Amino acid sequence: MSKIKELAEKYSDYIIQQRRFFHANPELSLKEYNTTKALAEELTKIGVEVTTFPDYTGVIGLIRGGKPGKTVMLRADIDALPVEEKTCLPFASTNGNMHACGHDTHMAMQLGAAKILMDLKDELHGNVKLLFQAGEEVGYGSKYYVEKGYLDDVSAVFGMHIWSSLETGKFCLEPGERMASCDVFKITVDGVSSHGSAPHLGRDAIMAAASIVMNIQTYVSRRNNPLNPVVVSIGTINGGQRFNIIANHVEMEGTTRAFSKEARNAIESELNNIVQYTAKALGVNAKLEYDYVTHPIINEHDDLNRIARNAAVKLYGEDCLASMEKVMGAEDFCHLAAKVPSFFGFIGCYNEKLGTIYNNHNDKFDVDESTLHMGSALAAQFAYDFLEENK
Amino acid sequence: MSKIKELAEKYSDYIIQQRRFFHANPELSLKEYNTTKALAEELTKIGVEVTTFPDYTGVIGLIRGGKPGKTVMLRADIDALPVEEKTCLPFASTNGNMHACGHDTHMAMQLGAAKILMDLKDELHGNVKLLFQAGEEVGYGSKYYVEKGYLDDVSAVFGMHIWSSLETGKFCLEPGERMASCDVFKITVDGVSSHGSAPHLGRDAIMAAASIVMNIQTYVSRRNNPLNPVVVSIGTINGGQRFNIIANHVEMEGTTRAFSKEARNAIESELNNIVQYTAKALGVNAKLEYDYVTHPIINEHDDLNRIARNAAVKLYGEDCLASMEKVMGAEDFCHLAAKVPSFFGFIGCYNEKLGTIYNNHNDKFDVDESTLHMGSALAAQFAYDFLEENK
Amino acid sequence: MSKIKELAEKYSDYIIQQRRFFHANPELSLKEYNTTKALAEELTKIGVEVTTFPDYTGVIGLIRGGKPGKTVMLRADIDALPVEEKTCLPFASTNGNMHACGHDTHMAMQLGAAKILMDLKDELHGNVKLLFQAGEEVGYGSKYYVEKGYLDDVSAVFGMHIWSSLETGKFCLEPGERMASCDVFKITVDGVSSHGSAPHLGRDAIMAAASIVMNIQTYVSRRNNPLNPVVVSIGTINGGQRFNIIANHVEMEGTTRAFSKEARNAIESELNNIVQYTAKALGVNAKLEYDYVTHPIINEHDDLNRIARNAAVKLYGEDCLASMEKVMGAEDFCHLAAKVPSFFGFIGCYNEKLGTIYNNHNDKFDVDESTLHMGSALAAQFAYDFLEENK
Amino acid sequence: MSKIKELAEKYSDYIIQQRRFFHANPELSLKEYNTTKALAEELTKIGVEVTTFPDYTGVIGLIRGGKPGKTVMLRADIDALPVEEKTCLPFASTNGNMHACGHDTHMAMQLGAAKILMDLKDELHGNVKLLFQAGEEVGYGSKYYVEKGYLDDVSAVFGMHIWSSLETGKFCLEPGERMASCDVFKITVDGVSSHGSAPHLGRDAIMAAASIVMNIQTYVSRRNNPLNPVVVSIGTINGGQRFNIIANHVEMEGTTRAFSKEARNAIESELNNIVQYTAKALGVNAKLEYDYVTHPIINEHDDLNRIARNAAVKLYGEDCLASMEKVMGAEDFCHLAAKVPSFFGFIGCYNEKLGTIYNNHNDKFDVDESTLHMGSALAAQFAYDFLEENK
Repeated sequence: MSKIKELAEKYSDYIIQQRRFFHANPELSLKEYNTTKALAEELTKIGVEVTTFPDYTGVIGLIRGGKPGKTVMLRADIDALPVEEKTCLPFASTNGNMHACGHDTHMAMQLGAAKILMDLKDELHGNVKLLFQAGEEVGYGSKYYVEKGYLDDVSAVFGMHIWSSLETGKFCLEPGERMASCDVFKITVDGVSSHGSAPHLGRDAIMAAASIVMNIQTYVSRRNNPLNPVVVSIGTINGGQRFNIIANHVEMEGTTRAFSKEARNAIESELNNIVQYTAKALGVNAKLEYDYVTHPIINEHDDLNRIARNAAVKLYGEDCLASMEKVMGAEDFCHLAAKVPSFFGFIGCYNEKLGTIYNNHNDKFDVDESTLHMGSALAAQFAYDFLEENK
Repeated sequence: MSKIKELAEKYSDYIIQQRRFFHANPELSLKEYNTTKALAEELTKIGVEVTTFPDYTGVIGLIRGGKPGKTVMLRADIDALPVEEKTCLPFASTNGNMHACGHDTHMAMQLGAAKILMDLKDELHGNVKLLFQAGEEVGYGSKYYVEKGYLDDVSAVFGMHIWSSLETGKFCLEPGERMASCDVFKITVDGVSSHGSAPHLGRDAIMAAASIVMNIQTYVSRRNNPLNPVVVSIGTINGGQRFNIIANHVEMEGTTRAFSKEARNAIESELNNIVQYTAKALGVNAKLEYDYVTHPIINEHDDLNRIARNAAVKLYGEDCLASMEKVMGAEDFCHLAAKVPSFFGFIGCYNEKLGTIYNNHNDKFDVDESTLHMGSALAAQFAYDFLEENK
Repeated sequence: MSKIKELAEKYSDYIIQQRRFFHANPELSLKEYNTTKALAEELTKIGVEVTTFPDYTGVIGLIRGGKPGKTVMLRADIDALPVEEKTCLPFASTNGNMHACGHDTHMAMQLGAAKILMDLKDELHGNVKLLFQAGEEVGYGSKYYVEKGYLDDVSAVFGMHIWSSLETGKFCLEPGERMASCDVFKITVDGVSSHGSAPHLGRDAIMAAASIVMNIQTYVSRRNNPLNPVVVSIGTINGGQRFNIIANHVEMEGTTRAFSKEARNAIESELNNIVQYTAKALGVNAKLEYDYVTHPIINEHDDLNRIARNAAVKLYGEDCLASMEKVMGAEDFCHLAAKVPSFFGFIGCYNEKLGTIYNNHNDKFDVDESTLHMGSALAAQFAYDFLEENK
Repeated sequence: MSKIKELAEKYSDYIIQQRRFFHANPELSLKEYNTTKALAEELTKIGVEVTTFPDYTGVIGLIRGGKPGKTVMLRADIDALPVEEKTCLPFASTNGNMHACGHDTHMAMQLGAAKILMDLKDELHGNVKLLFQAGEEVGYGSKYYVEKGYLDDVSAVFGMHIWSSLETGKFCLEPGERMASCDVFKITVDGVSSHGSAPHLGRDAIMAAASIVMNIQTYVSRRNNPLNPVVVSIGTINGGQRFNIIANHVEMEGTTRAFSKEARNAIESELNNIVQYTAKALGVNAKLEYDYVTHPIINEHDDLNRIARNAAVKLYGEDCLASMEKVMGAEDFCHLAAKVPSFFGFIGCYNEKLGTIYNNHNDKFDVDESTLHMGSALAAQFAYDFLEENK
């Protein structure tokens, strides 16, 4: 048995205990004050150098390897969701928030990895940065650390998400597109109001908005490559003043999802076309505002893909690998990936016997704690192997 | 010169003075407290029997004719609009409301008619009821008097509106469709919400609402007889919770207009078809709620049409008659017309030299006061002739 | 009894006999060879000067009045429809065509008028031109005579249509808008073809055409004044090559109707907007071709309106006048009206007892022959009075 | 070096020579008369037992193994396309048709496999059927052999397509969804015709068809799981009689594509919903006719997936394997796969140096002949290993 696998098993109880602590004390995005404090204390206890931020939550730990080399980052996210917990766990949250996305396990697994790597410190060819990031759920929490320069000396970053549809004890470490982008748009339609009995004296913004909505459906159905999944959803529509006045203003808000960069980048200009010209066709004006929020997660670095896969096989054999459809959800990890080469994997927690069968974000979401240490092992192995290979 | 014409000219100053008083003191619908008081006092001064209501505004005056006969009603409306007056009249309103629809002149003209008819009291073959009704602008103010039985002994009702696009000194007393119905509807679309990245797990109420809006356009364009003008307008649309959630609920409110009863009555069931089946086509549910609010104004009683026309010709010759396109607006007079045979006419107030050129409801709307007495004469003549003819 | 009324009654049998002859021998538009020949012979027999055309059907007769004056034109149309007759008349057509629009009666009534006017020739203050025009049903048959200069010396033109919804013995001689314009358009949508499994490699012209069709509905429902009836109908749509190829071409043809010049002239540019910008919104190109074919028929000359009305009253009293909703159909008479002042009326033929109750163009359409002479009288009286008034 | 690999290299020239012969003599679907004859002769020459069909093209060869066992089928397709060849090959087709889809290479590779397997005949644990099938391009050519019972004794079928976007010397032998279904539908919309000026007297089938087309777009955009690619394309639309008649009939034809069975099977009922209820909403009737034509190609048999992959690795090492996006095109192989367990792979022919860079179906499509023998080797190895494993 490899040393890392052995250490991970040894720390399994520790990891579970940490997970339960964080699970019981969830904090919302960018307000992870006690979580930050607890993480800093725990890392210090382990012997890791700690950086915290006067104006921001989250912690960065630094493990300096015994030998010279590059720096690799491991990343966990730390925020919870405004979900009322419905599990019957003894350590269930009672504060109205919940680690329904499993970030509690991310912290615990990364603390486990920290302990393993501290034990192997002298062998490491370089340093390991342990990012415990704030505000993943808002889609931009990770930007702070990039902007402040904390990734400037980092050569690669590894992240992992616990996933409810993946069997416990399995990793999904596939190359290519893994999670979708999430962009946000707003459409404003401006007509001219008039009395409802005299539509010809106005310009009906509601009717024009309806045509825009219908025409937007054709982007996905006709303009997008069906093999490159894309979603364009309008989530809100609000317009008009009164039942008997022709509406002079309608606002709509929506979101788009894509996996490939090409597919993602093609959307805005075509939506703009649809919005502006449909409006013109119907005698009104319309405007599209489009914000690029979250990039897709794409494992596009062959060496990191290989290191991750081999790390898992080395630890637990081929059988620990499972395949999983890509995910339409988005990940704030993308902002780190935009800065340095990255790999993003998934670890399973689905265990029918234990009843850990609910989806991430469900108020009954729970995990099989007994395999969390495997995540610690994988993260540690990835870091170890990356530094070894790049020494 | 006829006696009525003569009397009307004699009371012209009185009518103008009354109009100015009411103009300076506008009150909103169903809150015409001081207006009611002033009218009651004025009618009493004239010698008319007055009825007021403990729980409602408006006044009914009764002139008992010297000879036996039927009862005819003359109707004026008394409420103002929440419009900030922009005329520079010395008697302009300063309380934020305005008689921008000319109901001040309706009251004044009817008081003038009261004075004329009081002078001719002994000759009258029956009684004249003078309804000064509250709340015309809300579309149902006149219902109170009907429901309380004040029209039970009335054989005909005559109403008239001062109209800005009609030349001063002219009447429009045409038979047939004169003003449109105004009905109100609400459409509720119920889908199923899901995450914006997974539209297939929900049912998109916004997209379905858009298709409903587009299909509703086809009612006027394809299903309605183009020679029977109809309007279907959706004035408000509101739906969805958040940009990244598939909307499960959209509400729309609108109004329809029609002139003929056939055209009016055909709308609801076809809209219902469009709403319900379009929703079904797209996997959601939708509901149409439809309220019949204001009936169209149709001068459909040949004898009253004749009496009105002849009254005007008798007073001022053929030349006082002008033709006018029917009006898409609605009139609360319809509820009286639903109870008893009715006639509804228009009297002009457009005078380019005087600058009384603004549309009803405009904040600069004003009238040519010098011809108001003609309205008093016409109303009195109508009442006189109706009673004479039906003695 | 007036002389004209008397003469008309005298010629009633002649008129009926002529009508039956033409009814039995219908010819299609611009191919009215035998009809032309028969008309020329008959006019000659009556003593009218006849002009025929080497390259065109139709006849112009000239009655020179005994006194100097202007020239007034009476117009009848002479073509039949490709309708298989289903009446059981002894003189029913057996050649597959049918005078289902009543042009047979128009010819007969005009021959009757010719006989009356020939009898009054010496009294006439000017000349009467009798136009028997070809090709009314194709919408431009009357243009020939205008272009060849035959209206250059004409001061007014009078036309009349027999109408199935109007009671026999009645005329409808109302001022204003009487019949609609009829314009024709073609929309071409050009996309890019690709395999049906790869819509994103093409540009789907069918989907774009569908959006154009839906958006065009909004012209009538939202952009047109509901009091100015307008129709926009797309009658044909054809596009695409094969079920599994994205269509690169769609063609649509349609027609528009309007009564007022403003309403008519507003359509093209807005349709153009809708067509072009909707296409742009959806990534294809589209083109609108728009032909102005038939102008609306508007009785807008007060003097002619008066002469026509008075002529009827003079002949048959007020009671012969009936009111009739304007008609959405179009009339080739418009091209004459575009050249000289005009009046266009309707004469009734509906007689429930006789069973002449079917609409014009119906294969069972028939008329009450006994009142046709009234049409002759009216036309003659109009001509007589016009010349008298303008002497 | 394995014996099969060695034999394949030995027969490389033979394979190339066969390919050139078939390439020069392309025949259209179900008319592959000379191709059938040539194949039968060549198989006979090789020593394979041959079956041909009196009423159908295509050939089945039978190699009886020396040892008892099951029967495995290898399949090649033999028809060409009506494409005018634009390559400059010395053996280019001159008859107006072209093996632009590479079926010439499929025949050649399968003849190569036949020779290899004949050499190893005595070792085979069972029989190998060599299906050279007619009419792949029409989507149902393979059904004949199934219906006639020729697969009744077959335990597995192996097929392979040469593919232009795959590098020469590479195989793509991935599990799961590989090619899409292709189904066909027809929509008929029935309205009521009326004159174009009186849409309210008819029911406009063109407008209703347009709304149906727009609503159908929402199937892909809203109702389908974006991770399960689906295409719904309407390829033709035809309706209406004349520009001025409201259309009473529109027909549309289209096709759908899907990969997963769930996605494929969900389409019809939802399209039916959209078609029928949109029609009802708009007062017309519509009907959807839906034909299931070609099933998706899904490698869903784990043992066959493994045998195929291992066969390639055994022959040419891991490096011969390449990954390839699934293909929206359809494959007639599906009808064989519906009968017996199957595997379908791809072999590359893209060689930039040789200029074999054009897509299948392109009129310049060509292949790198030097690696065709690898296809023969893989097919032979698959057959050999399947029989060995199932002995």
